[in-house]
Amino acid sequence: MKSKKNMSMKDIAQLCNVSVATVSRVINQNGRFSKETEKCVLDTISELGYETNMIARSLRIRKTESIGVLVPHLKNEFFASLVLNIENYFFDKGYSVFICNTNSEEKKERRYLKSLDAKEVDGIIYISGNANIPFAMLKRNIPIVCIDRAPCKAKSAAIIESDNYLGGFLATEKLIEKKCEKILVLNTNKEISSVQSRFKGYLDALKEYNVPVQKNLILDIGYSSFEKVKNNISELIQEGTFFDGIFATNDWLALGALHALKKHRVEVPNKVKIIGFDNTSLSKYSYPSITTINQDTKKLGTEASKCLLNFMENEKKRGPVHIVLPVQLIERETTQTQYFN
Amino acid sequence: MKSKKNMSMKDIAQLCNVSVATVSRVINQNGRFSKETEKCVLDTISELGYETNMIARSLRIRKTESIGVLVPHLKNEFFASLVLNIENYFFDKGYSVFICNTNSEEKKERRYLKSLDAKEVDGIIYISGNANIPFAMLKRNIPIVCIDRAPCKAKSAAIIESDNYLGGFLATEKLIEKKCEKILVLNTNKEISSVQSRFKGYLDALKEYNVPVQKNLILDIGYSSFEKVKNNISELIQEGTFFDGIFATNDWLALGALHALKKHRVEVPNKVKIIGFDNTSLSKYSYPSITTINQDTKKLGTEASKCLLNFMENEKKRGPVHIVLPVQLIERETTQTQYFN
Repeated sequence: MKSKKNMSMKDIAQLCNVSVATVSRVINQNGRFSKETEKCVLDTISELGYETNMIARSLRIRKTESIGVLVPHLKNEFFASLVLNIENYFFDKGYSVFICNTNSEEKKERRYLKSLDAKEVDGIIYISGNANIPFAMLKRNIPIVCIDRAPCKAKSAAIIESDNYLGGFLATEKLIEKKCEKILVLNTNKEISSVQSRFKGYLDALKEYNVPVQKNLILDIGYSSFEKVKNNISELIQEGTFFDGIFATNDWLALGALHALKKHRVEVPNKVKIIGFDNTSLSKYSYPSITTINQDTKKLGTEASKCLLNFMENEKKRGPVHIVLPVQLIERETTQTQYFN
Repeated sequence: MKSKKNMSMKDIAQLCNVSVATVSRVINQNGRFSKETEKCVLDTISELGYETNMIARSLRIRKTESIGVLVPHLKNEFFASLVLNIENYFFDKGYSVFICNTNSEEKKERRYLKSLDAKEVDGIIYISGNANIPFAMLKRNIPIVCIDRAPCKAKSAAIIESDNYLGGFLATEKLIEKKCEKILVLNTNKEISSVQSRFKGYLDALKEYNVPVQKNLILDIGYSSFEKVKNNISELIQEGTFFDGIFATNDWLALGALHALKKHRVEVPNKVKIIGFDNTSLSKYSYPSITTINQDTKKLGTEASKCLLNFMENEKKRGPVHIVLPVQLIERETTQTQYFN
């Protein structure tokens, strides 16, 4: 007789004189089988110590009830909120959610994609990272939903995003309304479509209100540390570059700029007005509190999750999806007209 | 002949007249095998379409080069930092790190533990959650390292934590030095050993300096929202409970208290002084900035990772480990003696 270790469903099937499929049905308690068959299978299992192993099980039923989420920067509250909304949605449906932090590095994205593919997750949600998603490396035709940026070569991908263009436009328009004429724009990573759209919103608002574009007021900072942003702005001030408004493409950049201005005793909002993006706690609780563009993380997370679940449940439903969610300007102290520090 | 779908390593072994182990060596390109054997195996594979599947592979070699991290609240920057430090450490060593947010819910912890076990991760790092870790449910003898709280029934677990007792003591001592006599303590979840230790530090500091303990100044808030904390403190103020110092067992609670006091026009730090815990960005960038206890997330993450890797590489090395890392008080504006709002 075989040792317990080598016991397989096939052996159990042979001993009970039924098919492997029947053994599987008994183990998973779904589908039809007779009382006698059930007894034989269960007795054999307990006698021989066959252990159902989730991995072995997933090999058979090709469904692991888990999904993967790739996220660039968990320390950024906007991304953390998004991920938690996705996690809550799927957890309620019985799924485990594996969160993978990629630090926006292509190498990490590749490794995690490969790893999630190998672990046979049922689907992937891919949050804003590098522009070229290496979908081709996936062996399985796994459903993917992207949040926050347009994927390039996805066969069955979908995209859910905020109206980033509108956000950039609204922020810049507000600064112009507040009499700013030299508006500095701080871009994170301009290779990402969401940042491109915010930047385009900035450019179009300047155009609409006949404010000339100045190249020296366009700063591409990348995903930098708070301190680096602060230093960049400090340098600008020391060089004597004049600006009276700042549109930062995320709240961290806005906060870094605010602290650089404080350090150089430039009054905010009296001398320089600031608008951020994302409506994180940092913008709400900083001093002065920062005007920002709100993205609906709850809805972004839920819509992306719904879409992915839909794709997972029915392969035929997969196809191009593009959902754009509205954004709102949240006015706070950094754009107040009259303000006494 | 068998269909491609049912092709197994055993079938390949039979066709090449070698053992399954030899086929495995050829597929994984390690160990010894002859040129002829290699040719036969590879030809058979390409002819019959046998695909190595990472899951099937992990069934054989019992190593998935992935670990799981259970974390209670990713939106809390302290936990996010910790997780990212772990992720960086393991990524450099070739591991994928799956992050699971448990929201401190026992149900979620159980589901994720089971899921990580089933996915055969090589190890687990378990960050502060519920008091009773359900290690018994794990089928495999998987190495586990705990951060931030003592596990109860772990066979081969280790614990890495900050000196929470010292943190509680230092914070309370500082408030007493600053002439506070009625010190409110805000506890998150008192079932967790780290919170218990902080609270004990508070009690012992009061005792050391002969400050009487007042039951009405001990507030058990749990993991609440910012708004709930704010409301709790507001109620206390409205009821007329007098206090001139606050020790909050995390920075979020400290910030909630600060905002409640602002709302009721109680001057901070002139009338009430505040100390938080964790040294997150919120404490650094709030106004006034919040004095806090720094936990070394870099070292916590690295030490836990090193310990886990050690356990994973050598089963014999597993055993009780207890590392306690020092904390520091970071003095900011909420405890300044003279301060003009």
